Amino acid sequence: MTEKTKLIAPRLPRGFEDRSPGEIAAVGAMIETIRKVYERYGFDPVETPLFEYTETLGKFLPDTDRPNAGVFSLQDDDEQWMSLRYDLTAPLARYFAENYESLPKPYRSYRQGYVFRNEKPGPGRFRQFMQFDADTVGAGGPEADAEMCMMMADVMDALGLGGKYVVRVNNRKVLDGVLEAAGVAADEQKLAVLRAVDKLDKFGPEGVKLLLGAGRKDESGDFTKGAGLDEAQAAVVLDYVGGKPPADNEGVVELNAMQALFDAAGYGADRIKIDPSVVRGLEYYTGPVFEIELTFKVQNEKGQDVVFGSVGGGGRYDGLVSRFRREPVPATGFSIGVSRLANALKLTGNLGATEPVGPVVVLVMDKAETAGYQAMVAELRRAGIRAEMFLGNTKNFGKQVAYADKRNAPAVIIEGSQEREQGILQVKDLVAGKQAAQAIADNAEWKAARPGQFEIRRDDLVSAIQKLLSEP
Amino acid sequence: MTEKTKLIAPRLPRGFEDRSPGEIAAVGAMIETIRKVYERYGFDPVETPLFEYTETLGKFLPDTDRPNAGVFSLQDDDEQWMSLRYDLTAPLARYFAENYESLPKPYRSYRQGYVFRNEKPGPGRFRQFMQFDADTVGAGGPEADAEMCMMMADVMDALGLGGKYVVRVNNRKVLDGVLEAAGVAADEQKLAVLRAVDKLDKFGPEGVKLLLGAGRKDESGDFTKGAGLDEAQAAVVLDYVGGKPPADNEGVVELNAMQALFDAAGYGADRIKIDPSVVRGLEYYTGPVFEIELTFKVQNEKGQDVVFGSVGGGGRYDGLVSRFRREPVPATGFSIGVSRLANALKLTGNLGATEPVGPVVVLVMDKAETAGYQAMVAELRRAGIRAEMFLGNTKNFGKQVAYADKRNAPAVIIEGSQEREQGILQVKDLVAGKQAAQAIADNAEWKAARPGQFEIRRDDLVSAIQKLLSEP
Repeated sequence: MTEKTKLIAPRLPRGFEDRSPGEIAAVGAMIETIRKVYERYGFDPVETPLFEYTETLGKFLPDTDRPNAGVFSLQDDDEQWMSLRYDLTAPLARYFAENYESLPKPYRSYRQGYVFRNEKPGPGRFRQFMQFDADTVGAGGPEADAEMCMMMADVMDALGLGGKYVVRVNNRKVLDGVLEAAGVAADEQKLAVLRAVDKLDKFGPEGVKLLLGAGRKDESGDFTKGAGLDEAQAAVVLDYVGGKPPADNEGVVELNAMQALFDAAGYGADRIKIDPSVVRGLEYYTGPVFEIELTFKVQNEKGQDVVFGSVGGGGRYDGLVSRFRREPVPATGFSIGVSRLANALKLTGNLGATEPVGPVVVLVMDKAETAGYQAMVAELRRAGIRAEMFLGNTKNFGKQVAYADKRNAPAVIIEGSQEREQGILQVKDLVAGKQAAQAIADNAEWKAARPGQFEIRRDDLVSAIQKLLSEP
Repeated sequence: MTEKTKLIAPRLPRGFEDRSPGEIAAVGAMIETIRKVYERYGFDPVETPLFEYTETLGKFLPDTDRPNAGVFSLQDDDEQWMSLRYDLTAPLARYFAENYESLPKPYRSYRQGYVFRNEKPGPGRFRQFMQFDADTVGAGGPEADAEMCMMMADVMDALGLGGKYVVRVNNRKVLDGVLEAAGVAADEQKLAVLRAVDKLDKFGPEGVKLLLGAGRKDESGDFTKGAGLDEAQAAVVLDYVGGKPPADNEGVVELNAMQALFDAAGYGADRIKIDPSVVRGLEYYTGPVFEIELTFKVQNEKGQDVVFGSVGGGGRYDGLVSRFRREPVPATGFSIGVSRLANALKLTGNLGATEPVGPVVVLVMDKAETAGYQAMVAELRRAGIRAEMFLGNTKNFGKQVAYADKRNAPAVIIEGSQEREQGILQVKDLVAGKQAAQAIADNAEWKAARPGQFEIRRDDLVSAIQKLLSEP
């Protein structure tokens, strides 16, 4: 590389992020907890690749009008379009259809992995993020949907979020019944009505009424255009959000059946609640829809107290597999947003340890003696102790100890020429050293006491370190 | 969906594959074993996203002449080119440069994840595959390289491959010295010479000699063009592969230093061996190079016995970070090909269990009683037992049991109206049932004995199943 070579800026494309050791460990522990619940419910893992044919994935992202908007796509050598998956449901439908003959039916599976959205990133919104899904394909009854809701509740309990969440349940057929009763037929107006219903929690019945009609102005003066319903139409919808379900509705029957199952299995309304305001955006939902809401308060960007909100959801999608096969294949499932849930666990103190314990560092006091230091490290590692020789290019003792400190090392091992002659080693206990340093104010006293440093015989290296690491 | 809708073929783009439960579990266990070794060596995890700017990744794939060949790339909204990572080394260089100030130096890290190659797929060659890397950035001495080799050896031992592998080590500077001594200057000819040296294991010294000269015809008559060296030039290279290293060579000094460290730490030539024929393709290697070779025999596509070969490798790449920063940043590391290694473990019987134990299945004998069945399942799950209610749409007893069998269920629970009245349940022990079925030849005898089926009180469900599952 010549000196004139232009340097490349080391940076990531917008909306992508690196993950630190603490984050990896904490999210890994969280995923393991979720996985155990899924397994206990009889679900088996499966994994699909990140690419699918674009036509396989279909266009099921909410709020995308442009073709291919929201999806990363590229053309293969044979001119066919491939896309990175934007969720884990569309690939499952392909997988189930492709392996129809060999899979058990119903087919319960869980999948965890990255999905990609080619969208404008923002705070907390990434273009690559992780989902953790569970789905039952080939089961049409409300039992399968009820199982999803109970599993979501059990996941939240297993993560230590008991009392801080509610799984809210509704049914697309109920919403469709209300829209029909209100005489709303145009797709765009339907969407506007559903969006208004979705805002019940946020703005109350009065706010929903405005959004169903001409529109609503918020405190800052921003105006949101309404659905344009007349008073009679709006009254039908408001009756519904007020608790009056549409008569003779198949969705209501399904919700009642689910409620009976929740009761039988001992899931009260504090954990799973049927709620008329739940609206899920994805157009492929055909029956029950559900979402996990975390109910504790957090501050938003404006410093206001708001509920943490959704960390996942799902519903029944009976039409997705029929894109591949003639026979009807009912399916239901849900998806957990892993990063968002991890963030919730962090806020509630339920995320695991974030700082990994560092290795014992053998200092290099004499460059000509690295073989001897290497032998010490090998002994420690063979005994299962996390250990390393200092590999930097400084001979400075203080810098080597500073490195060990930065690595969160429990101890450093020191062997100078004098120690080597006597067959001994110095062990600097960095944990004890830090505690002592906080207690001893006087610098002279500190130096005299040499807190946390002691001598061992070279032959006792492994046993001495084992003893040190076993102390609390 | 209307009946006229054209069905979409459920299939994956070429070179991509799904992973089954057994594979996921086995590879997961393998990765966990590797991870523990990396941790013991003092390495910390880090994860980068799948996309990087194309210029960040650079063009370091071997054997690609077309620009962007081998890489999946697409243009972002702001016209900048992004690519899916093709290995885990280039993203690490970016990460280190970007976080230079805050990272400990030297920086030891490991990373596991998918990489992508936009190449023609073939048997065992995929366009998405997993790598598991470890690297030390900021350490220039042979100690860091030696540590890599010892860690690779420890990984192989931890996986149960002791005695079946060798880590082979060479040095790029040695090869460069030989090329210089032989008077080979043109890049293309250099490459041809290195390719010939790489074939020592396969074709022996005679074969290498032919490949260094005009070329070599194999048994099938196929001709491989040689490097075109004259006799004197070829003699220099052949002396080298015969065991005569170039004089006054920095690479030889480094290899000797590494050998001293292997000796001190107790790694004999049966585990780590300096070998002049090791050639690594990536152009960014600048010093020691190494690879893990599995030495046991397998049959190739032609039915011939060949050694299993490489499952990973690496080397020193001191130039990669300097693409981002002016100061020199030495680095060394290696990469394990996860699928290939998993395949090797499968062949040697070292891969973990591949068949997950299925759930206890509560049969649905009466659709009106699902709440009762659901309550049973909830009890079992609460006790930590993997369990589910049958969710399919058949009432047929045999089909429900066949489903349980396919799921590898240990038992099914049966409650008909008669059992319900009496407060009892039938438990069909599918494991005992299968064993008994093998022992009992006569069908009448089978029916009379009803092997593996017994009655329990409804209240004893959890304890009875716990007892059944604890039996060997």
